[in-house]
Amino acid sequence: MISAPLIDRLALIGAGLIGGSIARAARAAGTARTIVVTARSPQTRRRVVELGFADQVTETSAEAVKDADLVIVSIPVGASGAVAKDIAPYLKKGAIVSDVGSVKAAVMRDMAPHIPRGVHFVPAHPVAGTEDSGPDAGFAELFVNRWCILTPPEGADPRAVERLKAFWSAIGANVETMTPDHHDLVLAITSHLPHLIAYTIVGTANELGEVTESEVLKFSAGGFRDFTRIAASDPTMWRDVFLHNKDAVLEMLGTFNEDLSRLTRAIRRGDGEALFDHFTRTRAIRRGIVQLGQDSARPDFGRAHGGLPMASLPRPYASDDD
Amino acid sequence: MISAPLIDRLALIGAGLIGGSIARAARAAGTARTIVVTARSPQTRRRVVELGFADQVTETSAEAVKDADLVIVSIPVGASGAVAKDIAPYLKKGAIVSDVGSVKAAVMRDMAPHIPRGVHFVPAHPVAGTEDSGPDAGFAELFVNRWCILTPPEGADPRAVERLKAFWSAIGANVETMTPDHHDLVLAITSHLPHLIAYTIVGTANELGEVTESEVLKFSAGGFRDFTRIAASDPTMWRDVFLHNKDAVLEMLGTFNEDLSRLTRAIRRGDGEALFDHFTRTRAIRRGIVQLGQDSARPDFGRAHGGLPMASLPRPYASDDD
Repeated sequence: MISAPLIDRLALIGAGLIGGSIARAARAAGTARTIVVTARSPQTRRRVVELGFADQVTETSAEAVKDADLVIVSIPVGASGAVAKDIAPYLKKGAIVSDVGSVKAAVMRDMAPHIPRGVHFVPAHPVAGTEDSGPDAGFAELFVNRWCILTPPEGADPRAVERLKAFWSAIGANVETMTPDHHDLVLAITSHLPHLIAYTIVGTANELGEVTESEVLKFSAGGFRDFTRIAASDPTMWRDVFLHNKDAVLEMLGTFNEDLSRLTRAIRRGDGEALFDHFTRTRAIRRGIVQLGQDSARPDFGRAHGGLPMASLPRPYASDDD
Repeated sequence: MISAPLIDRLALIGAGLIGGSIARAARAAGTARTIVVTARSPQTRRRVVELGFADQVTETSAEAVKDADLVIVSIPVGASGAVAKDIAPYLKKGAIVSDVGSVKAAVMRDMAPHIPRGVHFVPAHPVAGTEDSGPDAGFAELFVNRWCILTPPEGADPRAVERLKAFWSAIGANVETMTPDHHDLVLAITSHLPHLIAYTIVGTANELGEVTESEVLKFSAGGFRDFTRIAASDPTMWRDVFLHNKDAVLEMLGTFNEDLSRLTRAIRRGDGEALFDHFTRTRAIRRGIVQLGQDSARPDFGRAHGGLPMASLPRPYASDDD
């Protein structure tokens, strides 16, 4: 038995990593009858047509949202207010408008005033991604077993919230609800601060006088390369995140700086016990993340290793010499 | 044609991730005729016997190094001086003594005075590893296409250096030579500072009042989980690294702190252009690392993604609605 799709007409504004993945996932899971995609740049729209993950590609947001039951705005958060204003006159009564932004209080502040009466505004943030961006980067499995956080405004229609929950569940995500302010605090530590630190240390390594760039690259397997992945994320998206979640990021940064000072002092004083204690505690966190299925249990994130350069020899030696 | 093994008798002191991987790799590549392993703890020695990657397992270092042509000390660097003193009376004339420590000036200072005349001391550091430790953690391919840095003392016998180079090449590594001080500076930025930062941020997340531990774990896919891998590394090893490379780590930390202050100021002032410029520069570094084969080109380090929860439906909709 094939049940009817959950959403009749899905409109996606923006076709980058997230928008493109939603389209592919919704098609693969049969979650939307028709998928309409638009994007600001003509190149992106052409590429979406070539990739074939949309049923329709429109030139304007106005066309895209016409008759849509669910509109998901998937663009850098700095542009979300302007897009809400653009689409407002064309939204169908009863439609749900959502987004995928990594900050929620600012999105709520910038988008909500433009949403017409009779349209349901339910902001969302799927906590998933890779370092790649653009319409080619997406894939249908991106949200599987990842969390999607909804931040419905007070007084939101519970049926609209349930419908959006069902949509994200259908494409594989776990769904949780919280306030925009709490979301911004949680993500400041689990996402925004890690990105800021990674961007910083990769920049630091790039500008040293005594160690050449070639040395940094060659010997990156000592740990540095783990930081370069998230420091390769989309610059526009991340600029907007830091501009729109300033307070929570600065707060977490304050705590981080205090902790870094404490460890620096332990190194300066040669306090091995303090270092050992700290390093032992942080091990448990990784185990928790792996147990929750939020990261690979395989060493090195499961990175592939090459084969040995020579053919393996049989083991002729042990018995002769023992 | 099977050529004779490069090393007749290889002694490994320590059978953790690195020692255990050297043993497995040397056997797989046929690089040593006999592999002798020792470890301080009886449990580890028993486990090495069970795992079967050594030809002989000895109770003491003295027994292990007897008649060995190449001795590799693979233990936390804080213990390297004491081990050098222990084995010194039993070393064969003409043998090569090496190590795998992540710091080189301190190892040179602590081990060199104990090495007898007629024995070649050539410190080394394979820049490879995973977050796992202990005898079960190793595997033969760990060093393939990774760099091994040799720091031979002034006046070292070039033939001994060449032989050690050949050993590391035979188990898959690229080999480079530099001074101990330069090594310690290079690794401070490519390995030690990244570990310190990762240990710090994971600790910070663990001690927040406003965000629960469960939230940190659940929403870690936003970036945080990338840091937890190296913050799960062996605490004893890393305590010793920071105690023995204090100056270079503190120097790199100073530069990192200046850069972090600059980015923090950009966030505080809402300077989007400064943020965007910085985030754009750091993208290139990742490309360089991938091009050099030092990390996976696949998104997300090539982490596996789960399948969609529903069976994919055929695409019956597009043609009806277009």
